[in-house]
Amino acid sequence: MTKIQDFQERITKLIAQQQFLGKPVELYEPISYTMNQSGKRLRPLLTLLACDLFDGDVEKALYPALAVEVFHNFTLVHDDIMDKAPLRRGKETVYQKWNSDIAILSGDTMFAMAYQYALQTDADLVQGILKVFSKAAIEVCEGQQLDMNFESQQDVSINDYLEMIKLKTAVLLGASLEIGAVVAKAKPVAIEQIYRFGIALGLAFQLKDDILDIYGKQEEFGKVSGGDIATNKKTYLYLKALELADAADRQTLLDLYSKTEKDSTKKIGQVKAIFAKYQVQEITSLLMEEYYVEALSLLSAIDADEAKKTALTDFATYLYERNH
Amino acid sequence: MTKIQDFQERITKLIAQQQFLGKPVELYEPISYTMNQSGKRLRPLLTLLACDLFDGDVEKALYPALAVEVFHNFTLVHDDIMDKAPLRRGKETVYQKWNSDIAILSGDTMFAMAYQYALQTDADLVQGILKVFSKAAIEVCEGQQLDMNFESQQDVSINDYLEMIKLKTAVLLGASLEIGAVVAKAKPVAIEQIYRFGIALGLAFQLKDDILDIYGKQEEFGKVSGGDIATNKKTYLYLKALELADAADRQTLLDLYSKTEKDSTKKIGQVKAIFAKYQVQEITSLLMEEYYVEALSLLSAIDADEAKKTALTDFATYLYERNH
Repeated sequence: MTKIQDFQERITKLIAQQQFLGKPVELYEPISYTMNQSGKRLRPLLTLLACDLFDGDVEKALYPALAVEVFHNFTLVHDDIMDKAPLRRGKETVYQKWNSDIAILSGDTMFAMAYQYALQTDADLVQGILKVFSKAAIEVCEGQQLDMNFESQQDVSINDYLEMIKLKTAVLLGASLEIGAVVAKAKPVAIEQIYRFGIALGLAFQLKDDILDIYGKQEEFGKVSGGDIATNKKTYLYLKALELADAADRQTLLDLYSKTEKDSTKKIGQVKAIFAKYQVQEITSLLMEEYYVEALSLLSAIDADEAKKTALTDFATYLYERNH
Repeated sequence: MTKIQDFQERITKLIAQQQFLGKPVELYEPISYTMNQSGKRLRPLLTLLACDLFDGDVEKALYPALAVEVFHNFTLVHDDIMDKAPLRRGKETVYQKWNSDIAILSGDTMFAMAYQYALQTDADLVQGILKVFSKAAIEVCEGQQLDMNFESQQDVSINDYLEMIKLKTAVLLGASLEIGAVVAKAKPVAIEQIYRFGIALGLAFQLKDDILDIYGKQEEFGKVSGGDIATNKKTYLYLKALELADAADRQTLLDLYSKTEKDSTKKIGQVKAIFAKYQVQEITSLLMEEYYVEALSLLSAIDADEAKKTALTDFATYLYERNH
């Protein structure tokens, strides 16, 4: 069993041990429903890998790792209300299955539970862990707000978009790693380095996600294929296409992204045709690769056992190559 | 200047010092809007008073006290979405002034900010403070869920109601005091006692709130007078009236509480007439007084300086006698 498999098993086991149950059932059912779905559990894995990288006691990082996972799931529950998303991981969202009030409140409860988990480690680690955790939590909210702003904002630049996904996605990957490093009592420079590795990895991860949303297979990806196009989401692909397109294609894109269809099949096809014409999938892949290479370079600069770095390199490569 | 006034001034000053600003402005404007309203700041005051009662350094309790206040305001922002409340403290709610997405997300941000504040004290205190804080946060959510359940639940008992207000309101008053005691490193029994004092005080406080909602003056109370009746809220007064009413009045009450009118003036008058007939205001006041007396008795049993207890007794009396 590889280290990654070992850590993944520990996380899966820890999550399975949690009941996520309580009273009133209306509050807790959506929580256990959410937490018992088969997520990738990437973020807690990063926490354990970073703790191990800096020779920390992985046992002490387990509950803080769980905290990050519960927090991440909380953000999905709330985001799905704002995005009116019917599906998540191939299943109905809490918002859809119950209602928005339930989704608000069980999300809030998950947020508090995440903090409860984060406390379950050595007392002298708690303040350090929670500083990182709370800062990331606020930044994730800022990212989600920017994402919502972009819906009605006409002049979203590519830089705006990259700043948004940094806050909404990359920061939490960085924080997951940083928390592991804090548990291991790594040195300040190392903590900064592993965080920056996480940011670069997170940016690559989100660009991959944007590509998979359009070009991935629905049964593997668990979301409606082309959902970002259907909901007029201004992703990197769209913004790049706008930048590269001639006047006619640009206008077609703007028109297509100004309405919502009941059946988006035709619209998705039209948008994909324009994307293909300007090779935006390939261009997005290039930027993704750039971030991936940057991540690996940041990782290699860290003063830590080379053999232990391999697990993180393998993990980054898996994220880079994944199809779902 | 009394101790209460001194502590209130410190809290007001600390809140005024916070910017509650940041980017994107869409996220932070509702936060500063909420935090700059003239709330009563009861909960942070309780934290400081409890810290002082157990001879703690009040300076170390200041940010944890602020954390409780920010958390409380966060719950109001989210509750107002679920309750579709247009007014709070005489001003538009965040949900009404902006929209529910903004209210969800700026609320989430406030929750994370509350934790950030709670961390700003001695490192060795953080785990203890946050255990109390997170437990209370979860219980407040449970209370709000029960409150929502009651809207459609036909057979709400008086005990159900008291359990609900304990979770939704009293627990946070208890936790505010407990956090102050934790900062002061009070003994376990004392911590338990001050918490229980807070629970009894909180129950009295909520019953007073229910009375004021119907019989208080709108300009003083800041909410629409009779709002609980207009929104068919099953308060202690309503449940007691149902219990005491004859068959005809009972049916009238049930009928009145089964619909929502555009203009509730007539409905409020009809309900208040039945309440008056069965003296439910007076009966509710009796129960409120019972909790108040219990609170004072719990306080007097605490092993602490009698002179210092006076501030808490005064404060409890103020809550008991308040008109808004």
